[in-house]
Amino acid sequence: MTQKQVQKTLKQLPVRERLIRCGVQLYSESGFQNTGIETVLRMAGVPRGSFYHYFKSKHQFGLVVIDSYAKYFSNHLLSILQDTSLTPLARLKQFVEVACQGMSRFDYKRGCLVGNLGQELAYLDDEFREKLEHVLRDWEKQTAVCIEQAQTCGELPSDQPSEQLAQIFWIGWEGAILRAKLMCSDKPMRMFSQWFFKM
Amino acid sequence: MTQKQVQKTLKQLPVRERLIRCGVQLYSESGFQNTGIETVLRMAGVPRGSFYHYFKSKHQFGLVVIDSYAKYFSNHLLSILQDTSLTPLARLKQFVEVACQGMSRFDYKRGCLVGNLGQELAYLDDEFREKLEHVLRDWEKQTAVCIEQAQTCGELPSDQPSEQLAQIFWIGWEGAILRAKLMCSDKPMRMFSQWFFKM
Repeated sequence: MTQKQVQKTLKQLPVRERLIRCGVQLYSESGFQNTGIETVLRMAGVPRGSFYHYFKSKHQFGLVVIDSYAKYFSNHLLSILQDTSLTPLARLKQFVEVACQGMSRFDYKRGCLVGNLGQELAYLDDEFREKLEHVLRDWEKQTAVCIEQAQTCGELPSDQPSEQLAQIFWIGWEGAILRAKLMCSDKPMRMFSQWFFKM
Repeated sequence: MTQKQVQKTLKQLPVRERLIRCGVQLYSESGFQNTGIETVLRMAGVPRGSFYHYFKSKHQFGLVVIDSYAKYFSNHLLSILQDTSLTPLARLKQFVEVACQGMSRFDYKRGCLVGNLGQELAYLDDEFREKLEHVLRDWEKQTAVCIEQAQTCGELPSDQPSEQLAQIFWIGWEGAILRAKLMCSDKPMRMFSQWFFKM
């Protein structure tokens, strides 16, 4: 989608949804503290009054943005990990492939909203910290199901519980996304996952 | 060291060194963009004029702070990885152990300056991005030497080049530090490294 098409799609959304969508994009790129409400309003083409009609504060808006991103990403993850046209291991590989394409599409600038805000906010705000941790736990649970299926059909070794493997995957994967931003390349994501899944 | 002792030690340092030391601490905790020069000056007990005597701008100060942290950490890493009283694998384990203790000592708030600034600045500034990537490459090189020694004496499998393994370790390790901050626990660091080194 071109920038013009994105703008057009944005304008067709209800105001609340439009603000959240802009929040996801801006926080993924520049972080929470560095993005003023003014920047969100400008991008969304919405007056300040409307913002406070929907959200009590920037803090509450931040929490809603995380929820929205978490829900979107969870659906995305499930759509790949439950695709029974592929074997379980092929689904995990497909998740990596799509993530690499996504990072490249945004010039390695966006990364993962949860990783970005975790790095920035874990120290500052317990409510954010706990929410972000909770989101990662959810993604891990979904990934564990697919890893277990791969173990059952012999595509991955069964010497470690799938929940533990899923947690280790997500620990390293967020590091790989961070490094991809630094290297402007999907190489770290491919290296880490190839090694993890012995692909 | 108590906070009072830290303050006393700080005051004994030359001004330039004092500013850098405060920069390392503040950027490790709150990031670069969220830490104004005023905050650094207040912590260092230094007037604004002195800052500009030593540094052209906040940007240049940031680059010097990264260099200083990189040098300190590189010495720290080498002192462990070249400790011949331990086997190569025991040295790698020792590095993990000391890192876990360090994270706990600062209540899981500081993390790695390079990981923090990478997350925050990769998108914004190519000079920072390239410097941070360069620092990680240095740490990887040092780690690769120890991994190779562990391979030579049969403590680690030799089926992958040590440089590649060191890179994968650092990709995941920065993710583990990030997650430790989110969980307020060293569990992610221990899980990732135990799995990586099959400890």
